[in-house]
This record gives sequence, C-alpha cells and structure tokens, in this order.
Amino acid sequence: MKNTFGSALALTIFGESHGRAIGGVLDGMAAGVPVDEGFIAACMDKRRARGDGLSTPRVEADKVQLLSGVMNGHTTGTAIALMIENQNTRSGDYAKTADLLRPGHADYTAYAKYHGFQDARGGGHFSGRITAALVAGGSIVLGALNRAGIDITTHIARCAGISDTPFALDDAAALAAQVSVLESRDEGFALLDASVEEPMKTAIRAAGSEGDSVGGILETAILGLPAGVGEPYFDSVESLISHMAFSVPAVKGIEFGTGFGFADLKGSEANDAFRMKGDSVVTATNHNAGINGGITNGMPVVFRTAVKPTPSIYKEQETVDYIAKQDAPLSIQGRHDPCIVPRAAIVQTCVAALAVGDLMTARYGTAWMERPTSYRREGL
Amino acid sequence: MKNTFGSALALTIFGESHGRAIGGVLDGMAAGVPVDEGFIAACMDKRRARGDGLSTPRVEADKVQLLSGVMNGHTTGTAIALMIENQNTRSGDYAKTADLLRPGHADYTAYAKYHGFQDARGGGHFSGRITAALVAGGSIVLGALNRAGIDITTHIARCAGISDTPFALDDAAALAAQVSVLESRDEGFALLDASVEEPMKTAIRAAGSEGDSVGGILETAILGLPAGVGEPYFDSVESLISHMAFSVPAVKGIEFGTGFGFADLKGSEANDAFRMKGDSVVTATNHNAGINGGITNGMPVVFRTAVKPTPSIYKEQETVDYIAKQDAPLSIQGRHDPCIVPRAAIVQTCVAALAVGDLMTARYGTAWMERPTSYRREGL
Amino acid sequence: MKNTFGSALALTIFGESHGRAIGGVLDGMAAGVPVDEGFIAACMDKRRARGDGLSTPRVEADKVQLLSGVMNGHTTGTAIALMIENQNTRSGDYAKTADLLRPGHADYTAYAKYHGFQDARGGGHFSGRITAALVAGGSIVLGALNRAGIDITTHIARCAGISDTPFALDDAAALAAQVSVLESRDEGFALLDASVEEPMKTAIRAAGSEGDSVGGILETAILGLPAGVGEPYFDSVESLISHMAFSVPAVKGIEFGTGFGFADLKGSEANDAFRMKGDSVVTATNHNAGINGGITNGMPVVFRTAVKPTPSIYKEQETVDYIAKQDAPLSIQGRHDPCIVPRAAIVQTCVAALAVGDLMTARYGTAWMERPTSYRREGL
Amino acid sequence: MKNTFGSALALTIFGESHGRAIGGVLDGMAAGVPVDEGFIAACMDKRRARGDGLSTPRVEADKVQLLSGVMNGHTTGTAIALMIENQNTRSGDYAKTADLLRPGHADYTAYAKYHGFQDARGGGHFSGRITAALVAGGSIVLGALNRAGIDITTHIARCAGISDTPFALDDAAALAAQVSVLESRDEGFALLDASVEEPMKTAIRAAGSEGDSVGGILETAILGLPAGVGEPYFDSVESLISHMAFSVPAVKGIEFGTGFGFADLKGSEANDAFRMKGDSVVTATNHNAGINGGITNGMPVVFRTAVKPTPSIYKEQETVDYIAKQDAPLSIQGRHDPCIVPRAAIVQTCVAALAVGDLMTARYGTAWMERPTSYRREGL
Repeated sequence: MKNTFGSALALTIFGESHGRAIGGVLDGMAAGVPVDEGFIAACMDKRRARGDGLSTPRVEADKVQLLSGVMNGHTTGTAIALMIENQNTRSGDYAKTADLLRPGHADYTAYAKYHGFQDARGGGHFSGRITAALVAGGSIVLGALNRAGIDITTHIARCAGISDTPFALDDAAALAAQVSVLESRDEGFALLDASVEEPMKTAIRAAGSEGDSVGGILETAILGLPAGVGEPYFDSVESLISHMAFSVPAVKGIEFGTGFGFADLKGSEANDAFRMKGDSVVTATNHNAGINGGITNGMPVVFRTAVKPTPSIYKEQETVDYIAKQDAPLSIQGRHDPCIVPRAAIVQTCVAALAVGDLMTARYGTAWMERPTSYRREGL
Repeated sequence: MKNTFGSALALTIFGESHGRAIGGVLDGMAAGVPVDEGFIAACMDKRRARGDGLSTPRVEADKVQLLSGVMNGHTTGTAIALMIENQNTRSGDYAKTADLLRPGHADYTAYAKYHGFQDARGGGHFSGRITAALVAGGSIVLGALNRAGIDITTHIARCAGISDTPFALDDAAALAAQVSVLESRDEGFALLDASVEEPMKTAIRAAGSEGDSVGGILETAILGLPAGVGEPYFDSVESLISHMAFSVPAVKGIEFGTGFGFADLKGSEANDAFRMKGDSVVTATNHNAGINGGITNGMPVVFRTAVKPTPSIYKEQETVDYIAKQDAPLSIQGRHDPCIVPRAAIVQTCVAALAVGDLMTARYGTAWMERPTSYRREGL
Repeated sequence: MKNTFGSALALTIFGESHGRAIGGVLDGMAAGVPVDEGFIAACMDKRRARGDGLSTPRVEADKVQLLSGVMNGHTTGTAIALMIENQNTRSGDYAKTADLLRPGHADYTAYAKYHGFQDARGGGHFSGRITAALVAGGSIVLGALNRAGIDITTHIARCAGISDTPFALDDAAALAAQVSVLESRDEGFALLDASVEEPMKTAIRAAGSEGDSVGGILETAILGLPAGVGEPYFDSVESLISHMAFSVPAVKGIEFGTGFGFADLKGSEANDAFRMKGDSVVTATNHNAGINGGITNGMPVVFRTAVKPTPSIYKEQETVDYIAKQDAPLSIQGRHDPCIVPRAAIVQTCVAALAVGDLMTARYGTAWMERPTSYRREGL
Repeated sequence: MKNTFGSALALTIFGESHGRAIGGVLDGMAAGVPVDEGFIAACMDKRRARGDGLSTPRVEADKVQLLSGVMNGHTTGTAIALMIENQNTRSGDYAKTADLLRPGHADYTAYAKYHGFQDARGGGHFSGRITAALVAGGSIVLGALNRAGIDITTHIARCAGISDTPFALDDAAALAAQVSVLESRDEGFALLDASVEEPMKTAIRAAGSEGDSVGGILETAILGLPAGVGEPYFDSVESLISHMAFSVPAVKGIEFGTGFGFADLKGSEANDAFRMKGDSVVTATNHNAGINGGITNGMPVVFRTAVKPTPSIYKEQETVDYIAKQDAPLSIQGRHDPCIVPRAAIVQTCVAALAVGDLMTARYGTAWMERPTSYRREGL
C-alpha cells in the first residue's frame, strides 16, 4: 500500500528532500520495548554523509525526533511517529536544470506519474535522503530484534571493483565471528578485510574526481532467526526481504545464498544435507541461505544486493528538456555522492530488520519483543 | 497477508498436492472483461508435465474450473474462484520416507511451523503443483493485460549449462521481435535460439538418468507498460515483481536489467540517456530495465530469475530422521522433474502478470481493463 | 479489500446464487486446531431454509466441502478452502422480470457497478445465499473460540412486532445463564422466552400469506473475551464487529450496550463503575458493553443489529424497467423468505466470530488457538 | 491494521494528548489536488474547544503543519504528513489520580493492553484530542470530495434531551436545502432549527454545573455520491462508514436511513420504489439511505450515530485503585467537556469523508480527484 510496508509490524514513510521534514510512523510495536535513542543515532550516523570526498557535501544533523509512542525510554504501545527535519537545503542548485531529465533518475517517471506537481527540489520524494526514514524506523525494530537474539549486519562485498572477503555462508560459526568483527568496528567502511578499505576509498575518490560514480554489492547476514518463520508462497522470507530491499531506489538485484550460482549446480550439489547437532537439526551446507520453501530453517539467512552507481554525476550527459521537448546536454549541479554503497550498508540492515520484524510479529504476535518484566510506572 | 497477494487486484491461493483440489480466488477484476478458457488452458498446458523424461511422470489434466465470477465468457465483476482437482495422486510413495527430511525441501521447515500437522503427502502445500494456481489466476490477468496492449513473456536464458540468446535489453525493436518469435512457438521449450533445444533436453535427460537434477535462469520481458506505473519505495515495480517472483519456491535470485552487472559499472556507463523519439521520451540504453525510482518509464521491463535445481533427486542423500532424531540416508521415491526450468517459464510470466495487474489497478482503478462496450446482456 | 475481511485471520468469499458453487478461503488458522465437521454442519443447519412457510421453499443441502487445509480432523496450518455447491437452482423464475429492478434489492446498484455483466440469476452475488459462506468460514473460527473459552450466541430480540426477553446486559451471571439456555435449544427459533415462539411464527406466516415480509432485531453476546483485545481508533472492537455486521446485506443498524440509549443519559448514569471482585477488576454495570476506548475490559460484549424486512415480496410494487427506461409494475417470482431474521441469527454469530478471531489473532498471534499438544502424526 | 484506515486512500494516525505532537499521514491522494489550508483550519476550528462552559477549558491553537506532500497549495502525489503540536498541557492534573481507573474511560483497558507502559497523561492516545488528526486528514479529503461534487455535513440531531429537525430522508431536494442551511452557518452549533440552540446550550451548561455531562445523536448526510460505489459484503458502504464512525471512541451506535425503525416495518413499507426521473433512476422514498446491497444507488446517504456522554465528570464516582487493587472513590481533575456532541459533528463529517474517499478511490482510482488541468509548474 504505497508508503506503508508490513502487515503485522508496519512502517509508513513520508517526506521530500527539501521539504520541511521527512519521517515515518512505526506501528505494531508492543508496549514496554526499550527504545535507545543512542542506538538510533548511531545507526543514523552510519548512513550520514561526511563531506569527505566519499559522500555528498550536504551534511545533515539527522536528529530523529520521536513525536509519539515512546515515553521514558520505552514504547507505550501506540504508533511511533519519527521526524527528521531538513535543514541544509540548497534548492537553488536544482532550479537551473529543473526541466532537464537526469538520466538514471526519477525525473521523467515523476513527470509521468505526478504531471508536474511533484516536488522536484533535490529529487523530492525520490531522493536517497528518504532512506533516513527507513533507518530511523528500522533501527527501532533492529534494537528489539537484537534483544531477542537476532542479529542483522551488512558489509560491502564489492565496491569500485574491489572485493571484501565474502561471508562464510556454509560455516555458521565462522559467519558469527565475521559478524562480531563487523559490529566491533565503530567507524570506517563496513568491511571484513580492513586492508581493502584504503584502496576502495581511493577508487571512489578517483571516480568522484572524474565527475563519475561507482556501484557495488552489499551482503547482509541475519543470525539467530528461529526455524519456522515465514510463509509458503506470497509471504516467503525471500519475498518480504526482497520487497523491502528493492524499496531502496538504487538496488537492482538480490540473491539469497548461492543465488544465481544455483543455475549451474546439480541438485546433488545444491541440496543442503540435514544432520543432527546435539538435539538440533542443522544443515551441512547453507546454499539455501537458511530458507526452505519460504520458511526459515534456523541457519543464517544471507543475501546480496546489487547497488547501481549513483546516477547523479557531474560529467556532461545527453538528455531531454521535458518542457521544450527536445534533446539537450546536462551538467548536473547540486551535491552528490560519488558512491552510496558504504552509506547504504546500514540501510540494507534496517530494511531487512523491518521485513524480519514483520515476519516475526506475524508468527508470534508481539510476544517476541516483550520481555518478562515487573510492573513499572516511571516518571509519570 | 499469507496466502493473498495484491491490494488492488488480489489472488488468494489454497491447496495441497494430494488434497482434494488446489485453486485460488482472483478478486478485483472489472465486470465485462473477456475470459478465454482456451487461453487459460493453453497457459496451464505450458506448465503441465508430459512424462517425457524431462518432467515428472505425474501427469495431471489440470482442468481449471471456474466456480464463480465468470458468465458467458466475461467476468461478472465479483470474485473469480478457480479450482483444479487433484486426480493422479500416489501418496503411498511418500509414506515410507515421511520422517526423513528431504534436503532442499520444506519438510523440516514445515515441521518447525506446523508441528507435525502439515499435510506432508507429495510435499503438501509446498509442492510445485501449487504453482498451477498461480498460472490459473495469472493467466486471466495476463489475458486482460494483453488486450490492454501489455505483453509478458519468458524464455529459458540458461539451463543445464546451456545458454539461449539473451533478450535485447537495449534495443526495444529487437526485443519486440524476440517476443514475437517466442509467442509464435506453440510447443517445445521457450527458447529464442531453436538450435539449443535438443542439446538442452539431452543435458536434462542425462542429469535425470543419473538420479540428479539441474537448475537454470529464466528471463522475462514486459512490453507495453505505460510510463508512470508503480510507486517510489515500498510499492516499486521491482518490489512487487520480486515479491511475486520469490513466491515460487525454487527462485533464489532476481535482477532487473543490468542487475548485478551494475556493481562494476560507472555512473556514466550505467545511466540511460534520455532522448526524444518523435513526441515521446525514450532512453538510448535500458540498463535500468524500464524502471526509474520504482516507476515505469515506458521502456521494456526485463528481469532474470535464478531457479535452483529440483531438490527431489533419486541419488542417495544424507539427512535426518526427524522422529528418531538421528542421521539417516535417504533415497527419494515419488515422481519428480529432473528440471523444472522449462515448466517454470509460464509460471514466471503469470506471477509477473499478477504483479503488473495489481500495479496497473492501483494506478488506474479497473479502467485499464474495461473496454468501451455497448450494453450487453447475453444468455441470462 | 473487496471480498476479503481480516488482516491476521482472514476470510475471502466468492460465489453467485445460481452459479456452480459458493464458498470461501479461511487463512490464518494455526496448525493442529480441531475442525469438527459436525459442528460446521450444525451451524449451517441453523441457517438453512426449511420450506415450512417461514423461510424460502428453496432448500439446499448446504454440504460444506473442505478442499484444503484440513486433514484428519485438524487444520494443517495452510489456507482452508470451503465449497458449497449450488444444486436447487431455478433460474427461469428470474428471466421474466430480469429488467425490472426489484425495490430494496441490489438490481439497480449492480447495473451501476457491473454495467450489465453481473450474474443476475437469483440475485447473483447479492443473494442472501452467500451468507452460507460466512457461516461456513465463521463456524470454524467459532469452534476455535469456543475451545479457548469464548462463547458467542445470538437471539431474536424482536421480530414481526414481538419481543423476546432482552439479554441481561448489566448482570454477567444472568447473561451467562441466558446463553446456556439458548445453546441448549437444539431446534426452533433462538429465543430466551419460549412462549413467544408460536406467536412470532404466526405473525411471520401472516405476513407471508399477504405476500409481504417482516424485519426484526438480533442481539448477540460474546462471553469470555479477555481484557486488552482491540485497538484504539481504527481497529476498535466496535469498528471490526460493525464492519462485519454490515457485511450482511439486510443489516441497517447496530448498537453496542446501551447504544442509542446513551443519547439521553448523563455521564453519571452512563459510566460503568469499576470495582474489585476478588483479584479481578469488573464493572458494576455494563452500558459500554465490555468495551472502553475500543478495547475489551473483560465484561460481556453485547450488541444489537437491525434487520430490515426481506425486500423480495410477492405484492405488486412500482418500479422501473431498466432497459426500457420506463416505470413499470413488478410482481416478483422466485422463492423467498417472508422473514430472514430467524435464519440470520447464526449469521450474526458467525460474522462476530470472524471479527473476534481476527482481533484475537492480531493480539496474540495464533497462540490463542493452539493447545499444548504432544507431537502427533496420524494417518499419513 | 491498527492505526491505519483505508486501502486505496489511507490515513495513519499517531499521538498522545500530552506528548509532543499528534498527527497523521494521508496516503493515496493524486498529484495536483488543491489543498486549502484555510479550509483545513476552518474544519479544525469547528472541532476546537472554546473555554465557554460548553467545552473543555483546554484551548489549543490546533495549527495543522503540513510536513510533506503539499507544495504551492497542491498535493505533490506523495504521502501528506500532518502534525499538530501539543502546547497547552497540564499533566500534573493527572498525576494525583493516575492509579484510579476513570469509569467509562480506557484507563483499565490501557493497563490490560499496555501493561503500565501507556502514556496515561491526559488520556494519552485515548484522548479525544486525537480526533484532531482525523479532522486534519479528513478535511483534505473532504475538500477533494467537495470539488468532485460530493457534499458531507453533520448536524446535532439530539443533545441534552433536545432534538433538532431531522434530515428530510425521503425528499432529496429538501435535504439539499437543509445541507445548504447548515453550511451557511459560520458559527454556533450545527443545527437546522436555530431556535433550539440556546435551550441546548443551557441544558449542557446545567449538566456541567452539576459536574455531569450529556450525550446525543449526530446525523450525517452525504450528497452527490454517484451510483455504483462500494462493494457487496465486506466493503459495503455501511461497513466502511461504520468502521470509521466507531473509531471515534464516544460512538456506541449507528443506523443508516430508517435503521432500527426497519424492525417494525413490513417489506411493502420498507422497500424504496424505483421510478424514472428524466433519464435517471431514482427512488420514491429513501429508507435504505442510498445504499442497496452495500452499493450506492445515487440517492443521499444518511446515517445517525449515538454519542455517549463524556465519561470525564467531576461528580465523585466509585472506582478501583489499580495498583492498590482496592475500591476507591474518584474525583476527576483535569479539563473536560460537559458535552462533546457539538464538537463531534465535524469529526463525524471528516471520518465519513475518509471512508467515502477510500470507497471512491477503490472504485475510480485517483481519477475522481484529478481535474483536467493544463501543465503547471509554479514557484519551483
């Protein structure tokens, strides 16, 4: 339903890049769930641009204001409204080229859909800035998942032609160790192999200095999901995660586990043998990424998303003047990222959290996020 | 919502492989839309097994019975109930190995979710047989889309290690010609290059004769979609199509247009330049597969789905006896496909039709499927 | 969403009066819930016409066929498809007057919406016969609610100008005793005061013999709902129950507890004082019908629905020939009830069960319908 | 879905009485629809308290801030976020009696549902103040409906024991005249008979001076709805309007047209005869309130809602101390309305607008709200 995702636990988003504010409403959280504003801020900070030649010079404070649904550090059980004010807007940058459709962008499709009434300033509702609302809402769900023992993290599998060590899909213990490494990094790119960080940054800056941009691949792992979550067919784990992953405008592909590699395997190679491990059923390999028939089997869920290069580049491009209805050259102004892949890692983590939160709530009601707690009544 | 997909035009499915019937309810069609039972049957026939060594020896008539919502060859405007009776069931094949979890299958996840109450006969609700309900419902929508000038077709891009000619992503005219070729083929595999059909069949039979199976890649093209369909973020064209594509249990990856190839492109290579073509805005290339910011731009939508090898193989496999809670070898009985890729082509076409039908209806109401028509009142 | 009600536990319905079958798909039941076909049949039987001068001479067997989702007397956890075949159809009765819009019926609105493509035979999708699908689906949920200690029952509060004893709104114990009395009646009208049954039947038959019909009021009680079910505002208990109650075409009014009587009370009279009863909080009166702020407070939920007289009457009426576009007299043929109130009692009970089942599932997931059960695996 | 109503045109609400802000997100408006902030303010003003002894002394500015989705006085086509800041809060009034459950209020049900984590200040999310978000969102839809020729208005049919002239249900022309009278009144109570205003105010003040409160009945008329809107069964016009009407916490009953009066009519009296009026089909009477089989027939839709007396009264009441688990007397502090009926009139109008807007959009897509317009591009 347009700007709402989720049936049992839902996020509704709103906002335009240069409007007054962006934000969302998160609906379906139980009462009494801790909300750590420091954790929200830390997630927002991972998405934030730094004006360091690697990301856009537009730097926003991105302070998430909780307008409702949270009191004394806990959810009240009602809808949580989140607002992030837009402050550093320079709409004038866009006025000059407002009629020139930026290739790879939604300028033309916005005209087709909104007939010229769209807010085109800074990309309007299509701006990557709106993903801040996904992180704001997703981080609250992510915090609840973490407390329930479910971990989600994303690293840059490939960017600017340079690859990180892949996740250890078939070795749950090794994968858990990799996740720990990623979560212990408190700054810098989300990489398993620290030695590729500088070459990657150099390659991004090089593209940026040419007025160009680069793409990449993100890899996300979800640990700790119990077996039995998800539905066969329409509400499969893959369906809901991919639905959310493609909500991020730059994502153009997703694969789970062995993904496109399955095409060249035989069944005897592709099947994940079951075996007992103590009293638990586990699989020897994890080609299926912890999902059989759309439902979790208790092994890690791992997926990879393809992120296209930022379409906003400074190089001159051929395009069309939509009003004059004629071909025209375009030199983009404004402030843009030469590469959004590093900033997009936390976005993928948060959209996965929203999908997983919805799946868990559909399966268990809100019981999964409620902790046994004595009666409390603070600070009224 | 579990077994329902779509908000404006919705399909609800039901059924188990060895139950009395499978089927669905298609809700949201306008009144007066022609329903061609011959076209439904032709789509069902493309999905049907033939007992020819390429697909399962279980051959079902797959006659789609329309229980409601259709009269005199036209929709009445109310919900259309579809029923396909199961006839050729041999549940005894499964009894012997009922406690042995088939690797790559949903046996274990079904236990985790349904606690032993699942109908496990023939895979129950997880059987690929349920995709017949997707084809039955999808083919009605596909017929309506066709009449509105929207064409959807799928070919086998790769199977058993052999590739077909890819769709001409960047050349809309050439792509339209390819689609015509595919639609003029009235039997055999959905291939652009007829010369690969026999080698592909030979490779599939070879895997089958070893008690093994093979996977592949399907490629789907959607032509004729107007610009302006879809929503930014959650209800993007990619989100809804991928949601449906992953509803098919064997699909483990999807990419739109250049997909994972974007990771190694620069923005200047990846952007699709706009240009005027007469009075229309078109793009010079089509890396973005006709979708910018989640919304169609009028160019063809092309996507590729990774299909894993059939998990049901006759080779002995290692697994677990779920009741005895111990490791055990498994030799699968029953009747299975050495390769489902050829039969899955029409399934991808139909699930895409369901997603596109929902998107069109969200955008235009039911107006897109209503034709100007004189008052009619036949055969009451 | 058109023919689907419920978000956590949903029923989708389909069918036309003289089509091949009517039915529904019930989605969201947990696995392992007992399904008693005898109970379903007993509920269907209460709705069934008897050809006794009190209801329509069209008598249908109304055998509910479970096509999926139930095995060995228990739910499997997948969607439950229900089908009731239409057998006793006499479409010829309608042909003669097909263009004459029956007053009080949906003939004209069907034209306005379906442009002549509607299945008009026997009222088509608008026939009261479709309520059989509500009873079929609702009775499965009602059975689950009963096992969870939640009781729903309906009596005829007033019909043909004759009133039954009202429910003891303010005395929970007395109300429970009334419910027991109603549930112990295995035939006849659902009345608390048996002495009004014959006068009521006589009055109905009298109206029928004049070619006329009568209306009435139904009163429904829901006992055993825990406190804390429902949501403030949009998903209030009153909102969901009324949404379902008005789904039954003849219902034109609903009131909860004191209902319209509140208009003439003062707050000091209308408020239900809280008091302790052992360790429980109860209310001294129950004007609010067990609902405060849209959420249950643990007291009985009681509501009354106004049922209009059957619009199909044999008396000549003034109407319009829709095709000729001129005024015309109408003498209705076909087979109709002089009063549907007695048959509608079980329908109100079942639609309330569907609303309550959805509310319970939204609150508790499926946990409320799952019983602690040892592992079972019968009859595979 | 909890805090969201509507499928094609949806409003999501949030907020607590003494939190930072209340508001909502309106999703599904077409681009280019005029948004008149003066009209929104005028609707808000009708709901606003005045501190005049007739309503609560808490007077809020209730300025609706549009955070997104509106630019240059027109919708942009994206979600419209609305925020109303809370300013005049005196939470201290509530602290003293925080553990004493106010009879008729949601204090106890909030405990049952939220386990003590609810924001109880000023009623929190249960406060009537949240209806300001319904008016803010509903007034935007109402403006669009008005431009499409659909009029919705509400008057006080009865309050404090005094009745206004009822709507002329059976005379469409007379009803339209009544609606004009109501809409021309720019202040005072929404009454057709101006002579009852002073007696009504006197009766309300009298109740207030006794520390008590009074209830009433609102009557709402919807003119100009085309025939063919709504769905049979679950999405009937009555179902959606009643769903919304009961979202307002004080509403405990609703009836359409003749409503509960149908119970004592015969079919020959209750049916509305069709007749031609020029080329149009109309009905001679309008007992069914413009709705047959859940679908509009083009005649006015009229319904009445029962509003209970404000539960917050100053008279001492018996209740329970929830923490001490013992009976206790309660004298309510805080600022409350002796009667909310006059302020609730615009709320009923606005919730009806939301239901009708959703029904229209489900029927026509957004076409009904789009005006043919030349290309426009102001003030970018």
